[in-house]
Amino acid sequence: MSEAAQTLEGWYALHDLRSIDWEAWNAASAAEKDAALNDLLGLVADWQAVEDRKEGSLALYTVVGQKADLIFMHLRETLQELNDIENAFNRSAIGRFMKKAYSYVSVVELSNYMAAPGVDPMQVPEIVARLKPILPKSNHICFYPMNKKRELQDNWYMLSMEDRKTMMRSHGMIGRGYAGKVKQVISGSVGFDDWEWGVTLFADDALQFKKLVYEMRFDEVSARFGEFGAFYVGNLLTGDALTKLLK
Amino acid sequence: MSEAAQTLEGWYALHDLRSIDWEAWNAASAAEKDAALNDLLGLVADWQAVEDRKEGSLALYTVVGQKADLIFMHLRETLQELNDIENAFNRSAIGRFMKKAYSYVSVVELSNYMAAPGVDPMQVPEIVARLKPILPKSNHICFYPMNKKRELQDNWYMLSMEDRKTMMRSHGMIGRGYAGKVKQVISGSVGFDDWEWGVTLFADDALQFKKLVYEMRFDEVSARFGEFGAFYVGNLLTGDALTKLLK
Amino acid sequence: MSEAAQTLEGWYALHDLRSIDWEAWNAASAAEKDAALNDLLGLVADWQAVEDRKEGSLALYTVVGQKADLIFMHLRETLQELNDIENAFNRSAIGRFMKKAYSYVSVVELSNYMAAPGVDPMQVPEIVARLKPILPKSNHICFYPMNKKRELQDNWYMLSMEDRKTMMRSHGMIGRGYAGKVKQVISGSVGFDDWEWGVTLFADDALQFKKLVYEMRFDEVSARFGEFGAFYVGNLLTGDALTKLLK
Amino acid sequence: MSEAAQTLEGWYALHDLRSIDWEAWNAASAAEKDAALNDLLGLVADWQAVEDRKEGSLALYTVVGQKADLIFMHLRETLQELNDIENAFNRSAIGRFMKKAYSYVSVVELSNYMAAPGVDPMQVPEIVARLKPILPKSNHICFYPMNKKRELQDNWYMLSMEDRKTMMRSHGMIGRGYAGKVKQVISGSVGFDDWEWGVTLFADDALQFKKLVYEMRFDEVSARFGEFGAFYVGNLLTGDALTKLLK
Amino acid sequence: MSEAAQTLEGWYALHDLRSIDWEAWNAASAAEKDAALNDLLGLVADWQAVEDRKEGSLALYTVVGQKADLIFMHLRETLQELNDIENAFNRSAIGRFMKKAYSYVSVVELSNYMAAPGVDPMQVPEIVARLKPILPKSNHICFYPMNKKRELQDNWYMLSMEDRKTMMRSHGMIGRGYAGKVKQVISGSVGFDDWEWGVTLFADDALQFKKLVYEMRFDEVSARFGEFGAFYVGNLLTGDALTKLLK
Repeated sequence: MSEAAQTLEGWYALHDLRSIDWEAWNAASAAEKDAALNDLLGLVADWQAVEDRKEGSLALYTVVGQKADLIFMHLRETLQELNDIENAFNRSAIGRFMKKAYSYVSVVELSNYMAAPGVDPMQVPEIVARLKPILPKSNHICFYPMNKKRELQDNWYMLSMEDRKTMMRSHGMIGRGYAGKVKQVISGSVGFDDWEWGVTLFADDALQFKKLVYEMRFDEVSARFGEFGAFYVGNLLTGDALTKLLK
Repeated sequence: MSEAAQTLEGWYALHDLRSIDWEAWNAASAAEKDAALNDLLGLVADWQAVEDRKEGSLALYTVVGQKADLIFMHLRETLQELNDIENAFNRSAIGRFMKKAYSYVSVVELSNYMAAPGVDPMQVPEIVARLKPILPKSNHICFYPMNKKRELQDNWYMLSMEDRKTMMRSHGMIGRGYAGKVKQVISGSVGFDDWEWGVTLFADDALQFKKLVYEMRFDEVSARFGEFGAFYVGNLLTGDALTKLLK
Repeated sequence: MSEAAQTLEGWYALHDLRSIDWEAWNAASAAEKDAALNDLLGLVADWQAVEDRKEGSLALYTVVGQKADLIFMHLRETLQELNDIENAFNRSAIGRFMKKAYSYVSVVELSNYMAAPGVDPMQVPEIVARLKPILPKSNHICFYPMNKKRELQDNWYMLSMEDRKTMMRSHGMIGRGYAGKVKQVISGSVGFDDWEWGVTLFADDALQFKKLVYEMRFDEVSARFGEFGAFYVGNLLTGDALTKLLK
Repeated sequence: MSEAAQTLEGWYALHDLRSIDWEAWNAASAAEKDAALNDLLGLVADWQAVEDRKEGSLALYTVVGQKADLIFMHLRETLQELNDIENAFNRSAIGRFMKKAYSYVSVVELSNYMAAPGVDPMQVPEIVARLKPILPKSNHICFYPMNKKRELQDNWYMLSMEDRKTMMRSHGMIGRGYAGKVKQVISGSVGFDDWEWGVTLFADDALQFKKLVYEMRFDEVSARFGEFGAFYVGNLLTGDALTKLLK
Repeated sequence: MSEAAQTLEGWYALHDLRSIDWEAWNAASAAEKDAALNDLLGLVADWQAVEDRKEGSLALYTVVGQKADLIFMHLRETLQELNDIENAFNRSAIGRFMKKAYSYVSVVELSNYMAAPGVDPMQVPEIVARLKPILPKSNHICFYPMNKKRELQDNWYMLSMEDRKTMMRSHGMIGRGYAGKVKQVISGSVGFDDWEWGVTLFADDALQFKKLVYEMRFDEVSARFGEFGAFYVGNLLTGDALTKLLK
């Protein structure tokens, strides 16, 4: 059976990271700010309504540090809807104050390296819920893209499926040790963006991100085969906090 | 027989990726927008007319995410025509609102690693049609540049032709498994741009991009020898959608 | 026992590096400069008050060379407080003149590779003081991020814990040779930022940074396994010097 | 005999790649455009006069794609003259519309790896003509910088001179197969710029660039030891075409 | 004896590379230009006075190509003085026209790999003069940063001191072959900037830079262990030439 057949896909994901153009914002009139903030709150309300209808989901967080100010993580059934979201944002009054910082296009994915033999994963309700998830409202988010390495003898894609399954099983064990502390959404981006996967973690205690990722780094899958992009960490942004941020 | 003799070339290709300058666009007057949109629709009509005369082809798609907003993929008989297209675009009223995002220069190419022995590929109508193709109007595009690796023992260019042929044949088999689902245009860019090849895929179901590229990644040609640049994925842009995008 | 269990964390750290927008500053009116400088001095006073209450700490230094003009290194109990500091800064009158240069998000950390067997590090007062430190006011600062390498046979994360402990002990010995000359704050950034650790050194004689880092480079931990990011070096900035800099 | 003694140098070379600031250009008045175009045509005429006196040479081409719009390749006896050219350009009325895109500093070079034993290359008229060449006016240009690799067992600089000579001879054979189709200027940039050599190719049929560079890539010198920078390809720009481009 | 003990340090160095903002300069009024040029000439005179008092030194050169227009290489007793120089420059009337291009922070250094056994290098007058040098006024400058590699079996820092001394001695021999033609200033930047050393060469004939660096590249120290950053080459800038450049 081919490798590709072993992967299940759900909603498409757009991580849309933005930097506030503070210079323009600070120079804007009160009326301009009101209009822009209204537009933003309106968009967030629209996106929330989509989530309420279970046709997609939104996670809205700040980003700590200079890489960006905000993460909008959108889930939708199609790439077209994600593109429409971007364009509506860019055309709105808030768009003028929100510079591009980084984005990531992927699709929520479950591999079944970890599935019990003989089980059709699409019959497992937990799996279906994970393919089209309502994103958690935990206190913190952590997002990073990653590859499996293909470097001489450390080449993940040249391993046998057996070896890969064994390693992924051990990897999954570590993740399970954080059940209740860290929720993770894995999205595949082969063919969609510059890394092979996006990893989005949610936790009420940000320290759990560090503990989880660090513990995994000693696992052979990460130690020998993990290649990591930039890491973004942030705080949950409620409507009130959004208003306060831009007041 | 030299390696170079084994490659057939057709039309030159320019992938011209642009980001809309939303700040300038949102600040433009209705008259300025009309003039710019008219210019753009006029250029698209001109390019379509060239395609109708079978003297070139155009694929016009959006890009999902912040890397760009639009891909204009142009095919022409000469590099001069491609340069004229760029310059006309830059001088037009729409040019002012379309910032450079990325571009790629290549030439549509067929290697005959896969050709049956003793067959002159230029006598195969399917091959000629693939060298000067009318680009599909599928729902989605996927574009990425790539190299064959030259890293110590993973050096494609130090393999025997026999080994390369065997591996490419297996690689082609995977591609054939996606017949009817994914159309691909391979263009060579050695001597023209920073990677050795550009790969442009077209599909009605974007998920097929992921499945194809991921399945190939376990094939030795990609696993040991593939080196990939940025991936761009987007949605078909019709004239109406273009007007709507910029309304 | 897992690796993660061996690490102790204290305050979160934000290294916020800024470049003065000299063009805007030189063009500003005296009143604008006064307002901006007042804002900055007010923020510094607020942050100093937090330090006085032992609820965080601030190190404020210039940066030599073009990479940045100023380092604000903030320590706080939560990521939320660090984010609030950034946003207050960006919204203030000084924010307009302070362009982003680089930032780093981490958490003050102590590994106990160096701990004597059987000792609970949290019972060692010196260790607790190092997890929530009041940053020194030495003449000079040196900051750089780093990784432990995972490159084929030079893969730190594939070593046995025994080997890692032995090497770290020898590494620590070198550091101890600089006691009284260089103070160091190690902060972990796995899951928070793009490198695994941030290293911040403080010394009255900047030459000691060079001597320490160079001596360590011959130690196997650094020689085989150290991977270093950009280095930033600077001079202590007192309130007076700040006023003089921006006069 | 040392390696350095084996290389002959002629004129210094400056590849000066520029992007037209189309936004500024399209916004300029007819009078401003006339003044700028006049300045440019005047500079080109001056440079042509230098070539006519055989005191230097100029190649002027467009660049296809977004990397740049124009390549000015200048050859001169001294670095001072090249610097004067840059400064005159930047101070002129056209300078305002010509943003920096890329530049390369080197010196036309001939290695005598390929020389017959016992022959003094400076007595070979063909060699002298190649050290201070009048650049061809072929239809197309291709420029790229390159290194010889120094990576573990693929380290060009650790090979014996005998091995290097043998490989370069075979490499030269491929080049000779393109005599009459591709003219090449090799310029050394060790100590002058970021790569070790610049390669500038001229051809009436741009496809010959691809065929030559691709064929060479299978040669051991390139396959194991070649490291390539960005590739720039363009079309000859005559005075008329220049006027048309900027009309 | 530790490695660090083998290095001697003298004056701190700041290489401050600037690009002239030609657009702003060309648009400035004659009065603005006069004021800016006066400021620049005043700063240069101040720096020259410091050199006359033997409390520092200045090398002022142009840069050929687009990377920068000017190199100001400053030597001073302390990092504070170097920082003061930057700030005075940025606050002056000329600062507005001089964009940041690159900078490098280091300290003039002599290793005693080359010292005869048993000799205290600080007793050798030539060595003391090299630690606090008055920079030459040769026609040309060449500056580049570099590392010693730490890549698997090509790891400089894992070699024995004996092996390193032997190799550095052979390396020094090549340098001595250029005595009278090339003067070099080596400055260490471990702990100060992104590479381990800065190399600044001075020569009346720029071709000697190429010959020296190329010859050294075949030496095992460079061939196996040298890792090089960007190269900057330029021409001596006298007060008159400065006035002419900015006239």
